[in-house]
Amino acid sequence: MLSAAREVAIDLGAYLAEARRLAIEEIRRFVPADEAMGPIFYDLMLDYPLREAKGLRPALCIATSRALGGGLEAVLPSAAILELYHNAFLVHDDVEDGSEQRRERPTLHREHGVPIAINVGDGMLALALQPLLDNTRVVGLGKSLRIMQTIATMARETAEGQAIELAWIRERTWNLTDAHYERMVLKKTGWYSFIAPVMVGAIVAGTNSDTLSALRDTAESLAIAFQIRDDILNLGAAGRYGKEINGDLWEAKRTLILLHMMRTLAPAQRAEAVAILDRPRPGVSIAWAAELDALVTDGDLSPRGRARLERTRGNGAAKTADDIAQLLTCIASTASLDYARAVGDEYARRAREALARAALRPSVHHQFLHALIDFTTKREH
Amino acid sequence: MLSAAREVAIDLGAYLAEARRLAIEEIRRFVPADEAMGPIFYDLMLDYPLREAKGLRPALCIATSRALGGGLEAVLPSAAILELYHNAFLVHDDVEDGSEQRRERPTLHREHGVPIAINVGDGMLALALQPLLDNTRVVGLGKSLRIMQTIATMARETAEGQAIELAWIRERTWNLTDAHYERMVLKKTGWYSFIAPVMVGAIVAGTNSDTLSALRDTAESLAIAFQIRDDILNLGAAGRYGKEINGDLWEAKRTLILLHMMRTLAPAQRAEAVAILDRPRPGVSIAWAAELDALVTDGDLSPRGRARLERTRGNGAAKTADDIAQLLTCIASTASLDYARAVGDEYARRAREALARAALRPSVHHQFLHALIDFTTKREH
Repeated sequence: MLSAAREVAIDLGAYLAEARRLAIEEIRRFVPADEAMGPIFYDLMLDYPLREAKGLRPALCIATSRALGGGLEAVLPSAAILELYHNAFLVHDDVEDGSEQRRERPTLHREHGVPIAINVGDGMLALALQPLLDNTRVVGLGKSLRIMQTIATMARETAEGQAIELAWIRERTWNLTDAHYERMVLKKTGWYSFIAPVMVGAIVAGTNSDTLSALRDTAESLAIAFQIRDDILNLGAAGRYGKEINGDLWEAKRTLILLHMMRTLAPAQRAEAVAILDRPRPGVSIAWAAELDALVTDGDLSPRGRARLERTRGNGAAKTADDIAQLLTCIASTASLDYARAVGDEYARRAREALARAALRPSVHHQFLHALIDFTTKREH
Repeated sequence: MLSAAREVAIDLGAYLAEARRLAIEEIRRFVPADEAMGPIFYDLMLDYPLREAKGLRPALCIATSRALGGGLEAVLPSAAILELYHNAFLVHDDVEDGSEQRRERPTLHREHGVPIAINVGDGMLALALQPLLDNTRVVGLGKSLRIMQTIATMARETAEGQAIELAWIRERTWNLTDAHYERMVLKKTGWYSFIAPVMVGAIVAGTNSDTLSALRDTAESLAIAFQIRDDILNLGAAGRYGKEINGDLWEAKRTLILLHMMRTLAPAQRAEAVAILDRPRPGVSIAWAAELDALVTDGDLSPRGRARLERTRGNGAAKTADDIAQLLTCIASTASLDYARAVGDEYARRAREALARAALRPSVHHQFLHALIDFTTKREH
């Protein structure tokens, strides 16, 4: 399908699946099968990429490039590089966020420990440099340098986005506007998921600066629409979801939904919601933390010991399931899901508008970009 | 001093200090003073670089380049890039190794938590890409691409070295030869501390392949000699040491000393030493772990609770100070420190021999390389 250019109704799923298959095939070429570093080092670099996923980034990169008249072979290494970076960021983010699940399975650090997860992520970042350099032979020197520049900016924006979010959690910041949220989203996931794939695809194909600017606007609006939909899905409001349901509430993520809820709640309720969210999640990701929870629950701890432990673990006790239920009630009372849906729809509209400005010739790849925007606000996973 | 070329007795400390000062000045240019990402994100990227350190890598890079007739201005950005990578690796390694101290102060993750430490390391790795790209304007396209290739190899070798060591600890592997140790050392620290600085310095200056090969041999031998000396200093045998004394024993690092001790001990003693080393170190690096140790010690835990906890924490209890003392006695009984000194001296000899093969013209920079080899096996810090 990726090599066809006929005008047919696009099968979004098939396009994504083929892009993902091609990217993985390419990633396998980058990752050696060398067992001398221990039996699992290079295997683990393929762990997240091989888990079932949408393949959004390679598809976006390939579709943009082909919609501009570029060839498939020329863009494939770049698409694969983006997918490898994406997965490296996920491995580190999951440790930093204390996430439990990724793509319907335990996160890498939960399965192999924090030290190995950090190093596997670093290994993936290191491996991605080689195809970036080899790209000179695929797309020429000028384009490959511009791609490297885009990747350098992307890596920096991503770390900045993560820093913003970590600072909010650390400083217990809740007084945030939608503009704060959008800026953080563009940096934290927007750059590596949408902006860089679209820009790199366009660089490989070659295009003028007006088209590039319109495509970048498309990517930015799409990034925000996509993340808002992700925030909605995280609350279990719809369908099959690869991450932990309500994980954002356990991790106190500043989602558009929670920020709207905070602005809308009465002061007393808001204070209560903040108190809940600022409590740590129970059971940090080390082997004996769960055991410890059991000790406390089973009463194997003296009252004095228990009090000391609770005190040390944060603001009194950790979050409970009842706390999460209470937050969901607050969200329902402020109609914040409806608000988020409306904002998401608006960003999808802007993405469509920007894509129209890019004035791409009709093709299955152009159709894919349209279909992806439609999918973003309707998807169930 | 770095700009002088007179033949005088070299002041090693002054040469290192000036190289470090210049590299830090350059790093400050890479790292923005943008507080929008939270007040500490970019500050923390300068935390390790600004702690008192030898400045070995920039000095080695500058000295190699200048000894080959290269100019100072041309090599400075590359020297700073290497220093930034070095510090990024340290931040992540300290988390992975559970290290407590770095350069006489608590490690970054002990001061700011694991999530921020991982992200600051990633931010440093991302920031380092920009000057690598800007280098085209400093040293030209051909050389800057070769430098990028060296850095890509370095990043991969470093992650592989870390993977080897983590696998040994995870698999409880002690049946290792000196060759295993040397291979791990070259990858884990040798590449980023010696091989890459020397190669990058040579690329900037431009040189023939015979000289490059001799310089690379110098760097490899020096890397092993340097690490062996580090292993010796870690045991508190000498002088001022920035890391935790006996930290290698607490972390069960496979040092040349311990490997020799294992080979030399009688089977029963060896089994006992292995059992000690395979126990976890007490107190993992999360806020309430120390508190938990206190709970256990103070008897706030019921006997049943205590037994469950100990069982979950690993092979029975964690290492104790008595365990470490016992290991030190074993090391003394097998004269493994003397063995390590002899092997270190042999590698220093090989480094001198390889440097002679490089046939560098006399200069203060050439003198520095000689003095550094001498310093390596005699240094007290």
